[in-house]
Amino acid sequence: MIISVIGLGLLGGSLALGIKAKRAGIQIIGVDNNAVNAEKALSLGIADKILPLGEAVKAADLVVLAIPVNAIAALVAPVLDLIPPHATLLDLGSTKEQICKEADKHPNRAQFVATHPIAGTEYSGPEAAFAALLEHKTMIICDREKSSATSLRVVEEICHLLDMPLRYMDAISHDLHLAYVSHLSHISSFALGITVLDKERDEKNIFDMAGSGFSSTVRLAKSSPQMWGPIFTQNKKNVSEALGSYIKQLQAFKDIIDAEDEEQSKQLMLKANDIRRILG
Amino acid sequence: MIISVIGLGLLGGSLALGIKAKRAGIQIIGVDNNAVNAEKALSLGIADKILPLGEAVKAADLVVLAIPVNAIAALVAPVLDLIPPHATLLDLGSTKEQICKEADKHPNRAQFVATHPIAGTEYSGPEAAFAALLEHKTMIICDREKSSATSLRVVEEICHLLDMPLRYMDAISHDLHLAYVSHLSHISSFALGITVLDKERDEKNIFDMAGSGFSSTVRLAKSSPQMWGPIFTQNKKNVSEALGSYIKQLQAFKDIIDAEDEEQSKQLMLKANDIRRILG
Repeated sequence: MIISVIGLGLLGGSLALGIKAKRAGIQIIGVDNNAVNAEKALSLGIADKILPLGEAVKAADLVVLAIPVNAIAALVAPVLDLIPPHATLLDLGSTKEQICKEADKHPNRAQFVATHPIAGTEYSGPEAAFAALLEHKTMIICDREKSSATSLRVVEEICHLLDMPLRYMDAISHDLHLAYVSHLSHISSFALGITVLDKERDEKNIFDMAGSGFSSTVRLAKSSPQMWGPIFTQNKKNVSEALGSYIKQLQAFKDIIDAEDEEQSKQLMLKANDIRRILG
Repeated sequence: MIISVIGLGLLGGSLALGIKAKRAGIQIIGVDNNAVNAEKALSLGIADKILPLGEAVKAADLVVLAIPVNAIAALVAPVLDLIPPHATLLDLGSTKEQICKEADKHPNRAQFVATHPIAGTEYSGPEAAFAALLEHKTMIICDREKSSATSLRVVEEICHLLDMPLRYMDAISHDLHLAYVSHLSHISSFALGITVLDKERDEKNIFDMAGSGFSSTVRLAKSSPQMWGPIFTQNKKNVSEALGSYIKQLQAFKDIIDAEDEEQSKQLMLKANDIRRILG
């Protein structure tokens, strides 16, 4: 089986390494418009060879788009133009509505499977990739009814190989939920990082006095702007709604603290404590 | 050496367990106005016996206040009234200005050492305590010049025993910095928890689709309202300022996303990425 992975960063690299670790006889063709990353992916064993996009797509049984979501949206149609009739196209983007819209217009739509693995770290690039990243992580497959049985089976088998539990939903619901349980967390972290950096110019103070709580809430502020910029744009409506609600909650908290209304503040925190039921 | 620990929760319990694990011949007298917690602390080996506050203070070489900061502020003076002349009083509160103000009025001020260990988890109560919690965590000692050499030495020796690096600063600076690197993180998490819980009434959706990023940013939403309510009240001025700046940053992010100004959004994220220099 020949898998062409377009984008040899954290997710594309980890998928390639994960599949190679579990199954023999897989050839990975890598595509990356960053020559340094392509070279690194070769030397790290992520890709067996590097080809230009068109050649890689034409040679593949499975094509994986693991690039920023704006680039995925732009490439879905051209790749579906070039892909062999028996092959499957898979994308790993964190937004799904706009990408699916692009695919829906294409006569080869059934060869496409829209997925989002709930996996990642705050690091990026081929050096950040590792074989176990996707293992046991939920894979969301969107608009399954628009994919052919064959293409769906190819993707489901890979998920099975990597022990990824499957979850099915439509692209529009996906983007709404992800705005709340993922995209909002990233913005809350980015904004927290900026707020604290703006105030604390004396780094020693931050470093010494920040405990694990701060590290935990600000960790995602290390995430890649190249990846996240397009996600926020594509999911603008939902992200903006989530962010608006979050700002309202914070303002309510601020008003209560300003008023020294400790009873109300405890009530808010008790409500937040309910997250224990979900996170354990 | 007899140490009376007032408040047998996460911090008080962990301090007692940590000291007992490192040094023989320590007797821990526990005080807790929650009888169930007192009983648990006995059975977990945190305390060797339980006494009422007054008796425990009078019998001690070292008294530790490990209770919510409003209770610390209320008890500093009464405990300094009762404490034996050779003994030391230590508090572990997350705010320092108001607690130090209470101590400063007392003739036995020199027996008091104001500290804040940069350690904790989102859990609370004696069952959450463990001997290693404080190890290698920074201990901030405030207004050291107001403590006697003897009392300061007692506290520094315990920190040394637990491998806690020491940091000295005045109580007012402490509260300002902690608003940014700790208190703000907690509010950002509480508010995030409420925002997502309000939207996602179907818990299965959250649980399946939330990745490690969400867990990481929302972890502190599990924290104890009883502990955090008084911290926000005592540090109102600084927390409100930090929260105001944070809301402004989030609003700026929202405006940029609404305008689909991806270049600006990437600039903001790049600025936030600078947190890598500090967190590694």
